[in-house]
Amino acid sequence: MLPTSKPMPDTIAYIGQITGHNFHNASLILEALTHSSYATEKGCICNERLEFLGDSILSIIVSDYLFHHKPTLPEGEMTRVRAAVVCERTLAKCAREIRLGSVLRLGHGEARSGGADRDSVLADATEAVIAALYLDGGYIVAKTWVLSLLKESIAAALSVHESRDAKTALQERFQGKNAVLPVYTVLEESGPAHNRFYQVAVAVGEKTLGIGQGRSKKLAEQAAAKAALETLQ
Amino acid sequence: MLPTSKPMPDTIAYIGQITGHNFHNASLILEALTHSSYATEKGCICNERLEFLGDSILSIIVSDYLFHHKPTLPEGEMTRVRAAVVCERTLAKCAREIRLGSVLRLGHGEARSGGADRDSVLADATEAVIAALYLDGGYIVAKTWVLSLLKESIAAALSVHESRDAKTALQERFQGKNAVLPVYTVLEESGPAHNRFYQVAVAVGEKTLGIGQGRSKKLAEQAAAKAALETLQ
Repeated sequence: MLPTSKPMPDTIAYIGQITGHNFHNASLILEALTHSSYATEKGCICNERLEFLGDSILSIIVSDYLFHHKPTLPEGEMTRVRAAVVCERTLAKCAREIRLGSVLRLGHGEARSGGADRDSVLADATEAVIAALYLDGGYIVAKTWVLSLLKESIAAALSVHESRDAKTALQERFQGKNAVLPVYTVLEESGPAHNRFYQVAVAVGEKTLGIGQGRSKKLAEQAAAKAALETLQ
Repeated sequence: MLPTSKPMPDTIAYIGQITGHNFHNASLILEALTHSSYATEKGCICNERLEFLGDSILSIIVSDYLFHHKPTLPEGEMTRVRAAVVCERTLAKCAREIRLGSVLRLGHGEARSGGADRDSVLADATEAVIAALYLDGGYIVAKTWVLSLLKESIAAALSVHESRDAKTALQERFQGKNAVLPVYTVLEESGPAHNRFYQVAVAVGEKTLGIGQGRSKKLAEQAAAKAALETLQ
């Protein structure tokens, strides 16, 4: 099991190292890592107020990024991507990657029941650390860290949109034209379970328009649709 | 009926006057005021992407304000106050106060069906104007305007908390003590319908602990509870 609390200097150095920020006010780090169960036991401040602030900071950072970096993405898609990124599951995943659970301050019961690896506890602590960074270093410092932390999650959420668009766009090109719609066929399926390979062709009527590869059938179909759209253009 | 669109210079001057900001990029104002129905008719950009961004800006401004100005307010209460302020009804109310409906650009159907006074249309446009201000003038400019716009709504949402706390706190002081709980009695009720006056006394057993006044029975009771708490302290 992960330790529930490390000696203070270690924790502060660890968060400094993870975030790349040298905290002026180190007590903010401890507050951000303090779960309410620990605060109740020890009579200190928990991370809930920081989490409240961090939630909004996270939202504006992701919104601002999408708005400026994806100038043609419709509002509905930006909302979907933001919701996929600013959610408990994604934040907990990021928290695990930086081993945030190892420096959390949890009450005895919470620690024993696995709180250091619980999605809600990890996500809340991540938001609290974002707020601590914002308060100590300002918006740019918080933004730099958040975007490096969420880079892959944002890219993944965007790629779902882009890929989905390819299949939808291809479908739309043939709708209403005597209903001859794209048909996807698996050409190849190989490799071990943890590393499958799929090759898929998409055809309309007799004509093959594109071939795509991917680690899942879905991804290969999406790649095939993209190739077909390029052929048609 | 309010006009659906004023000549551009008037609209730009009007938003400049309302926000106290001299826009460098006036096209942002027009985008913020353009409903999707108008954009569809004329083939221009609507305010939905700005609204997406404005929603997050609004949230961080209100969160930051509550976090710094109410350092003892628990997270749950901050969340409640933020939700009461960052909501369609409150934003639409603020939009009406600044007559935002008079400069909206709506499609013919939307204008005919009363879109210029619809809560959702007004709230969305307000968020879009917040984003336009943020993009053109920066965070501080947006923050200054938002806080002046929402000042009364934030104060009202906070006062509900503070008043509710008074009644709850008084109740809690007497709970478990043979169940002799505070009783509220209306001493006076007067004035015309639009300007009622209430005076309420709160007593525990035979003893009157506080008297309070207000424009509604509820407000007077809350004031009485507050007075009682002061007496007890």
